[in-house]
Amino acid sequence: MRSISIFGATGSIGEQTVDLLLRAGGAGTHRVVALTGGRNLARLAEMARLLRAEIAVCADPRDLRELRERLAGSGVEAAAGPEALLEAADRPADWVMSAIVGAAGLAPGFRALRHGGTLALANKESLVTAGPLLMAEAARQRARILPVDSEHSAIFQALVGEDIAAVERIILTASGGALRDWPIERLAAATVAEALAHPNWTMGHRITIDSASMFNKALEVIETREFFGVAPEQIEVIIHPESLIHSMVGYRDGAIMAHMGAPDMRHSIGYALNWPERAPLPVARLDLARIGQLTFRAPDLQRYPALRLAREVMARRGLAGAAFNAAKEVALDHFLAGGIGFMDMGCVVEAVLEVLDPELGRENDRMTLEDVQAVDHLARQRAGEIVRRQAGER
Amino acid sequence: MRSISIFGATGSIGEQTVDLLLRAGGAGTHRVVALTGGRNLARLAEMARLLRAEIAVCADPRDLRELRERLAGSGVEAAAGPEALLEAADRPADWVMSAIVGAAGLAPGFRALRHGGTLALANKESLVTAGPLLMAEAARQRARILPVDSEHSAIFQALVGEDIAAVERIILTASGGALRDWPIERLAAATVAEALAHPNWTMGHRITIDSASMFNKALEVIETREFFGVAPEQIEVIIHPESLIHSMVGYRDGAIMAHMGAPDMRHSIGYALNWPERAPLPVARLDLARIGQLTFRAPDLQRYPALRLAREVMARRGLAGAAFNAAKEVALDHFLAGGIGFMDMGCVVEAVLEVLDPELGRENDRMTLEDVQAVDHLARQRAGEIVRRQAGER
Repeated sequence: MRSISIFGATGSIGEQTVDLLLRAGGAGTHRVVALTGGRNLARLAEMARLLRAEIAVCADPRDLRELRERLAGSGVEAAAGPEALLEAADRPADWVMSAIVGAAGLAPGFRALRHGGTLALANKESLVTAGPLLMAEAARQRARILPVDSEHSAIFQALVGEDIAAVERIILTASGGALRDWPIERLAAATVAEALAHPNWTMGHRITIDSASMFNKALEVIETREFFGVAPEQIEVIIHPESLIHSMVGYRDGAIMAHMGAPDMRHSIGYALNWPERAPLPVARLDLARIGQLTFRAPDLQRYPALRLAREVMARRGLAGAAFNAAKEVALDHFLAGGIGFMDMGCVVEAVLEVLDPELGRENDRMTLEDVQAVDHLARQRAGEIVRRQAGER
Repeated sequence: MRSISIFGATGSIGEQTVDLLLRAGGAGTHRVVALTGGRNLARLAEMARLLRAEIAVCADPRDLRELRERLAGSGVEAAAGPEALLEAADRPADWVMSAIVGAAGLAPGFRALRHGGTLALANKESLVTAGPLLMAEAARQRARILPVDSEHSAIFQALVGEDIAAVERIILTASGGALRDWPIERLAAATVAEALAHPNWTMGHRITIDSASMFNKALEVIETREFFGVAPEQIEVIIHPESLIHSMVGYRDGAIMAHMGAPDMRHSIGYALNWPERAPLPVARLDLARIGQLTFRAPDLQRYPALRLAREVMARRGLAGAAFNAAKEVALDHFLAGGIGFMDMGCVVEAVLEVLDPELGRENDRMTLEDVQAVDHLARQRAGEIVRRQAGER
């Protein structure tokens, strides 16, 4: 029986992973090792009972007592805090879902690679901030990383049975976000509510804003470069408002293999769960005749500076991804709080990359997790300073 | 050095195969065994000289003297006629292109399977009329058949590295042909010239009419059933006027893998030539942003009775494909000659299938090439009679 751990079980990806496990037979078909969650202790305890997990870990040590109470009599061990999270990652599991959101997801995923099993990677920050490190560790441990983002899962699927040397280009699709049809001169004044009106996917607030600014796509471009090992100039982005083609791979014989499907993350999660098999999944089937049309347009780099910045990060590599991601997070915080405008986010990130340029010089094969964390910290500081300086100038 | 033969070298597919071989280095990189052609002796002789073929075979024995003269001093052997064609197919070759148009292409391809190499199959009739026979012979001889039609090549490519058991559906795309936007009540009066105005592909007259009537798609549906071994109900047809998605495979996890590319047969030919590798090919690359949109609609079975008849043929199998194909050929002849109307073609084929029903009872595993030829002959006779009877009634 395959052993499974889920990091970030109570988030959206975690919930859908648990849903698929329960549909597949739950505790009867999988041995669940660790489930970790944030603040939703009731749900975490419920999942742990349903799946008969060995251990449930919550983020905050102050919640340990309540988690213990909720698990009383279940036989599920309770633990809490960052150290407990890493200890849970050290428990061997054949398949580990890394779905903790943000920089906090990096370390547990990295540790889980040591078992030499499969890491299903939904945490975007891992590859963006520490791609070379993570891929090298996976190779060293003979572990396998499977992408869970719909775009990277699509690319991975379009590469099944193919030779990466025959790849000419990878084409990431982007919805273009809520503001894609706005006149460019109005973007600076876009409000949070306006940027949140995403047309296709129902997602959290942060990622929906990142979709409108295409910072999300910029992260995915960097992930694509790190995960698939292609050259930056082989990666293209195309706006595809219907979001039904999840990405494409173009080969040197002119073929483009495109992956299509309903916008349902359970497909990508289920693909990673069942790989290398394709098991039946409870997702809607596309009816292209009813859909009628799929449209495409080139992204405007004026409108989406994040895409331009992603190219700079890819050219630089090393610790540039960590700085980019951290600066983006801070800029997003300030936009959500009403402190800066929509188009200011790109300016803040660009300024951070500029000011940190001398600090990003670590070679890809010399950087450590500590370097990544240090640059993350530094970039957040600098981004905060830049925002305050801008506010002072106004 | 790989040995290659091309049956139907002077036709459109043959010409493009020769083009790719010459670009790949011609006689220096491949040992060309046999080239066969129809009436264009000058071109056949020129190709044979360029590729330093062992033997060139023309269709008509009366042309042998001229072919010999054209090959004088080249060291290329000349031969002519159906027996010579089969003898050429008996010469061992690692890779054989079967691109003779029509029922005449069946026997040489069948014979070439005996070498246990690769048969690149462009001849549509082979699978439609003798699918069970051909696939069984390939299995027995441990030979491999690679599809060259753009649709079947697309499906084949969407299946690379995948398990056929995970396939839920195969979606063949169809341009819908020249008359797809006509009001259905006007179709009966469509002229040959009108049906020839195909929007995307430049093809021969016969196949362009078959595209307008979707008899071509009906043949491809039957081929799909025979080649990939899926159930008839797993095969769907969708109208996709831009013809840039060449076909799709839907899996049981909800994924659809679609193959896209420029409408250039050199892609499918080159794919079969280089398989399992993807070598660089001189075909245009798709620029989806410039293309802007891809559209889809369901085919109307009233408008395209050929699709309904294909389902009947698939339900029946055995010799029904041979009867269907032969009746279609005769109906097409009469439409091209102005003897019957556009919508009469479907009526003639349906009537032939009905009248021949008792003759089509041969089991798939008992039928022979002779049975196929006999039913082909009989169906042509019956179709002629039906056309004459219809003409008499008018």
